[in-house]
Amino acid sequence: MATLRDIGVSAAVNILMAFAFLLAFAILRLQPINDRVYFPKWYLKGLRSSPTHSGVFVSKFVNLDYRSYIRFLNWMPEGLRMPEPELIDHAGLDSAVYLRIYLLGLKIFVPIMILGFAIIVPVNWTDGTLEHSNVTFSDIDKLSISNVGDGSKRFWTHVVMAYVFSLWTCYVLLKEYGNIVSMRLHFLATERRRPDQFTVLVRNVPPDSDESVSEHVDHFFRVNHSDHYLTHQVVYDANRLANLVKQKKRLQNWLDYNQNKYLRNPSERPTRKTGFLGLWGEKVDSIDFYTAEIEKLSKEEAAERERVMSSPKCIMPAAFVSFRTRWGAAVCAQTQQSRNPTIWLTNWAPEPRDVYWHNLAIPFVSLTIRRLIVAVAFFFLTFFFMIPITFVQSLANIEDIEKVAPFLKKIIEKKFIKSLIQGVLPGLALKIFLILLPTILMLMSKFEGYIAVSILERRAAAKYYLFQLVNVFLGSIIAGTAFQQLHTFIHQPANQIPITIGVSIPMKATFFITYVMLDGWAGIAAEILRLKPLVIYHLKNFFLVKTEKDREEAMDPGSLGFNSSEPQIQLYFLLGLVYAVVTPVLLPFIVVFFGFAYVVFRHQVINVYNQEYESGAAFWPDVHGRIITALVISQLLLLGLLSTKLAAQSTPLLLALPVLTIWFHRFCKDRFESAFVKFPLEEAMIKDTLERATDPNLNLKGYLSNAYIHPVFKGGEESDSVSLADIEQDEALVPTKRQSRMNTPQPSKYSSSSSSHLELQQL
Amino acid sequence: MATLRDIGVSAAVNILMAFAFLLAFAILRLQPINDRVYFPKWYLKGLRSSPTHSGVFVSKFVNLDYRSYIRFLNWMPEGLRMPEPELIDHAGLDSAVYLRIYLLGLKIFVPIMILGFAIIVPVNWTDGTLEHSNVTFSDIDKLSISNVGDGSKRFWTHVVMAYVFSLWTCYVLLKEYGNIVSMRLHFLATERRRPDQFTVLVRNVPPDSDESVSEHVDHFFRVNHSDHYLTHQVVYDANRLANLVKQKKRLQNWLDYNQNKYLRNPSERPTRKTGFLGLWGEKVDSIDFYTAEIEKLSKEEAAERERVMSSPKCIMPAAFVSFRTRWGAAVCAQTQQSRNPTIWLTNWAPEPRDVYWHNLAIPFVSLTIRRLIVAVAFFFLTFFFMIPITFVQSLANIEDIEKVAPFLKKIIEKKFIKSLIQGVLPGLALKIFLILLPTILMLMSKFEGYIAVSILERRAAAKYYLFQLVNVFLGSIIAGTAFQQLHTFIHQPANQIPITIGVSIPMKATFFITYVMLDGWAGIAAEILRLKPLVIYHLKNFFLVKTEKDREEAMDPGSLGFNSSEPQIQLYFLLGLVYAVVTPVLLPFIVVFFGFAYVVFRHQVINVYNQEYESGAAFWPDVHGRIITALVISQLLLLGLLSTKLAAQSTPLLLALPVLTIWFHRFCKDRFESAFVKFPLEEAMIKDTLERATDPNLNLKGYLSNAYIHPVFKGGEESDSVSLADIEQDEALVPTKRQSRMNTPQPSKYSSSSSSHLELQQL
Repeated sequence: MATLRDIGVSAAVNILMAFAFLLAFAILRLQPINDRVYFPKWYLKGLRSSPTHSGVFVSKFVNLDYRSYIRFLNWMPEGLRMPEPELIDHAGLDSAVYLRIYLLGLKIFVPIMILGFAIIVPVNWTDGTLEHSNVTFSDIDKLSISNVGDGSKRFWTHVVMAYVFSLWTCYVLLKEYGNIVSMRLHFLATERRRPDQFTVLVRNVPPDSDESVSEHVDHFFRVNHSDHYLTHQVVYDANRLANLVKQKKRLQNWLDYNQNKYLRNPSERPTRKTGFLGLWGEKVDSIDFYTAEIEKLSKEEAAERERVMSSPKCIMPAAFVSFRTRWGAAVCAQTQQSRNPTIWLTNWAPEPRDVYWHNLAIPFVSLTIRRLIVAVAFFFLTFFFMIPITFVQSLANIEDIEKVAPFLKKIIEKKFIKSLIQGVLPGLALKIFLILLPTILMLMSKFEGYIAVSILERRAAAKYYLFQLVNVFLGSIIAGTAFQQLHTFIHQPANQIPITIGVSIPMKATFFITYVMLDGWAGIAAEILRLKPLVIYHLKNFFLVKTEKDREEAMDPGSLGFNSSEPQIQLYFLLGLVYAVVTPVLLPFIVVFFGFAYVVFRHQVINVYNQEYESGAAFWPDVHGRIITALVISQLLLLGLLSTKLAAQSTPLLLALPVLTIWFHRFCKDRFESAFVKFPLEEAMIKDTLERATDPNLNLKGYLSNAYIHPVFKGGEESDSVSLADIEQDEALVPTKRQSRMNTPQPSKYSSSSSSHLELQQL
Repeated sequence: MATLRDIGVSAAVNILMAFAFLLAFAILRLQPINDRVYFPKWYLKGLRSSPTHSGVFVSKFVNLDYRSYIRFLNWMPEGLRMPEPELIDHAGLDSAVYLRIYLLGLKIFVPIMILGFAIIVPVNWTDGTLEHSNVTFSDIDKLSISNVGDGSKRFWTHVVMAYVFSLWTCYVLLKEYGNIVSMRLHFLATERRRPDQFTVLVRNVPPDSDESVSEHVDHFFRVNHSDHYLTHQVVYDANRLANLVKQKKRLQNWLDYNQNKYLRNPSERPTRKTGFLGLWGEKVDSIDFYTAEIEKLSKEEAAERERVMSSPKCIMPAAFVSFRTRWGAAVCAQTQQSRNPTIWLTNWAPEPRDVYWHNLAIPFVSLTIRRLIVAVAFFFLTFFFMIPITFVQSLANIEDIEKVAPFLKKIIEKKFIKSLIQGVLPGLALKIFLILLPTILMLMSKFEGYIAVSILERRAAAKYYLFQLVNVFLGSIIAGTAFQQLHTFIHQPANQIPITIGVSIPMKATFFITYVMLDGWAGIAAEILRLKPLVIYHLKNFFLVKTEKDREEAMDPGSLGFNSSEPQIQLYFLLGLVYAVVTPVLLPFIVVFFGFAYVVFRHQVINVYNQEYESGAAFWPDVHGRIITALVISQLLLLGLLSTKLAAQSTPLLLALPVLTIWFHRFCKDRFESAFVKFPLEEAMIKDTLERATDPNLNLKGYLSNAYIHPVFKGGEESDSVSLADIEQDEALVPTKRQSRMNTPQPSKYSSSSSSHLELQQL
């Protein structure tokens, strides 16, 4: 059992690590050569075009100004200085609200921590049950509920504090939900004209023997929304075309690489082999080879583009339908169109950058089947993921490797390498799995058929949260695989489960303290260093970059990654709430995490991240719901723990707490959630009226005509075969770009060729 | 343990009882004097105005035609003869679809019964495990799964049959859901113009300091639905007025009674005492007394009517808003109006007869609190209802009664009365509670704040179903109070619960067979006899009836009573599905119940019942959901049962069944449920267009202006003070009456004074 001393050592190590990362960051960020890694946001906004320092050649790469090193933690206050409205303008509402999750953590846990230390810790400390008992205990345990004797009257304190903490958490959550809702409504109300305000996505257009999809959509809406229907845009199945474009881009990169190589060393023309991965086959001149390949692909692409545009088979039974007024779009999105609820499905169109094109044509019946499959698959993933990993681990032992590949025997038999393999290999499979997990969950969500990137991220986050809850939280407490837990839970009485877990809770406090320090403190510090983007940027910069535009493409600003990072935060909420009453000593560590993470991510949001889309904080109901879940879990576990402590008088009082909390959740849902799923007609009407007054001659049809076109049909240079008409349409889109910048600084991904390069690479 | 012989005896008794009821019914219904009890529906439809037989005086009361007695089961084929479309025309879609629940039972259980007897019964019978064991067993047990030995390969049959039965049930449910949906859509599409098609109920109109509610509503919708808004009707808080009207009606009945008495015996004027309940006080002339009282009340009523109409305090923050087109109403009902989702709440207006006026003014916040309170209260009612009843029982013992009321001692001490009291009293409290239960649950639902009678009935039915599931089904199987069950379940492992119940299932087969015969067979036969309405009608007829119109009011046709009868049917579905694999011998009893009940209720729906409202089969999703619940319960219990039978190879196969069933439920929900909660715009547009073409000069405003007025402001004679304008408006309503008759035969309750009397009495 860890003593205070162990924790002190662990804390020192982690603080040192965090400090080292911060120091490295402070030095690296000041080097002009890294400017595009640490300040990409400003480049994308067009407010920064080259490193800030200029002068002698060296200072183009290295910062020689010693003064700037002295103030190496300067970025912290800088990051905090920007006021929230400006932040929303600068980085979008999604990012601003995301940061508020950390603030929410502080708001909840700082008062709880103070109360916990002022009331619960003294009550625990002064009982001294552990001292008079024979069990071994650490100093941490003396501060926890374990130190209070069975049946003691002191448990009244814990029961009362559980109520106080729950009330406080609910109060803060209520206030915050209200805030976020009004921020969202204000954001939606003040934002400029955007295509998605007028547009509804229609799916499952029924087949018609006489009419094409386009005509059918046109007729249907002309009849049923006669006063409001304006125009529509059919959806092409351009997935193959997008693949070709991506492939060409890859070849273009190789061509650039070889050309650069040749430029640097003109004496030797670079060559490659024609076989698989360039490993064998005939040797050819690389530059010629890639030029020819690109030529070939360009022709193929042009043919495919022709086919997509002309063949009716490539038109999906879906369309983006635009209306004259926001009112019309709001009405169409919220109502059912046809008798048969599985056809003519209407939803708000996600904003153009947010559309996940691949899923637009999934038929209705297949959707429910896909969700069933994913639900079952996710269940098995969560509870049985250890089975394949154990299998891989058993394969990867040295004897087997030697058998399969005898030529490696000599290397493996060396003592150092042998111990390295034996030490690393077993953990490697698990580590790789955990790194891949968010991607796997994202793939599952994609398979479920959601049509917007923002929804995909929210669904993947929900899955990741469940996985973490089962495998990290419960897994650490019960110390067994999820499958063993499942077995235990099924074979235990329902009232025994909270007891089993509750009893182990105080004993695991020290473990979770070290977990918070390692994963929270050092992890966050590593985040700010951006080691991976730094390396990749410099590699790209060296091998691929020819022009300033290429350099811009080489930047990888990244984004907040809601699907993997939010569930991580939720784990801290869960730990904080569970330990608030049991072992308040854990709370300072959580509070430090929230504070530190807030500062770091605020800096990143301002200087680095570039959100791919803007959903208007649509994720908040999920965040709220998960904190409520954590609260209920904490209450049930406390109930289980106290019921073993023979506090028969006080424990039944706790029964009302989860009921009240769940009711509170329902109340919040009724009160606030509609702001995230519906769009009030009153608002729409106000904006329509205003617009009619200020801009009576607006050519809305022109404005909307090409807003929802598949990304591969946009962008200049790659699509050489795009007709003049397309280019003109692109010009008609210029206002879009300018306006979307007001809210979301990135030049709309699919309307600018420069960024679409980048994005296609990422896909 | 009951043997086949016991069951035979029980069956004989119950069949005899049912037969006696049917015979009594056959005789009573042929007497002209009972014509209004057994054929009220035809009177209400105006197709029958006096008993069919005429001639000598006696034959006005007694049917002397012996031939009609011979064919005493004639009503059965008669009841079945009416084709379904005509039935919908005659009795409304609600009733027609309600009858289909019984048909559904036949469709599900007849093939299951045949398969069960062809396959499962022989498999069970030929194993003979019981014969070689020492346990006592009945013949029924030899046909059940108990007769198959542990670990036998024969359990494969049961597993396969569980799949077959579940598949068949789901298939029938799917088909039926599709049928009902198309019936509903057809019904809605073909019905004539009705006020609720154009009208939306708006609740939680926010207070405005400058404008009255009426002006505020008018302005809001004029702005936000400018093209479609037509008119609106504010809601008055007329609950006190309704009470006065009801009271007056009661006094009027007493006056009639005394006048009749005087007419029959002119020698003596009836008198009464003025004190409480006429038990003491000064003796006065009854006719004068009641006339004076009615006079007084009339004045009071007029004053109250004046106050309601003029005082702004009596105007609730709710309104019925009508639109020019069905399209406009459909849009408004399905969209959110305001930023704040707790104000300007819009819903489809229930049809005028269906509105539950009392709940229209409940504010939003109070709604969630009310639901919490009811949920908690219902939980305690279900699990702890035995506590107060036991308490009452313990109070009601003879010694206590003698102490409290010594003057009763002499009577009580008589042996016969003493044993009667001791035999009856303990059961009495429980019996009274069970009779009152549907009323209690209905009161709870009313407290929850739903705004339509149809919704109230559905909610009360859901509660009653849960109560039955816990207290009748589980209570009979585990043989303990619900509270003891709760205790058991909490203290048992989750996987132990289906085992505990599953193991008891085969042993309770005989109990449930007798239950089905008593409650199902004899109960249904008693239903057709209508003993209570028969007695009440004749009492009223004798004491109160003066004119033919009074006689019409004395009829009590009753209605299907969805809130108490549907959960009863669900119990049979549950029993059938649970025993289908375990003890198929139970199935014939269930099938007979469904067949018999179908015939009886079809007769009643055609000849007797008069639905108070028409919801267009809105209850079907509930019915469907509960059958699915029963299916899942049956699967889990089979799983529990088989897991004790050591059938380790076959049992795990069953695990997929509940998952698939729940998925099937979700699929049905997605596919069909929207037909019950939304109204497709396409339909609305078609009907609007059609109407514009056929009836271009329709004065819709006039048509709608008074459709949604509180019932007490309608109706002729009671509201003497209603102005001429009101009467004119009533005339404007005539078309409504005529049209609503097309679908729902009852002359719209609140637009005809004759039926509103009746309804107010029922309230």
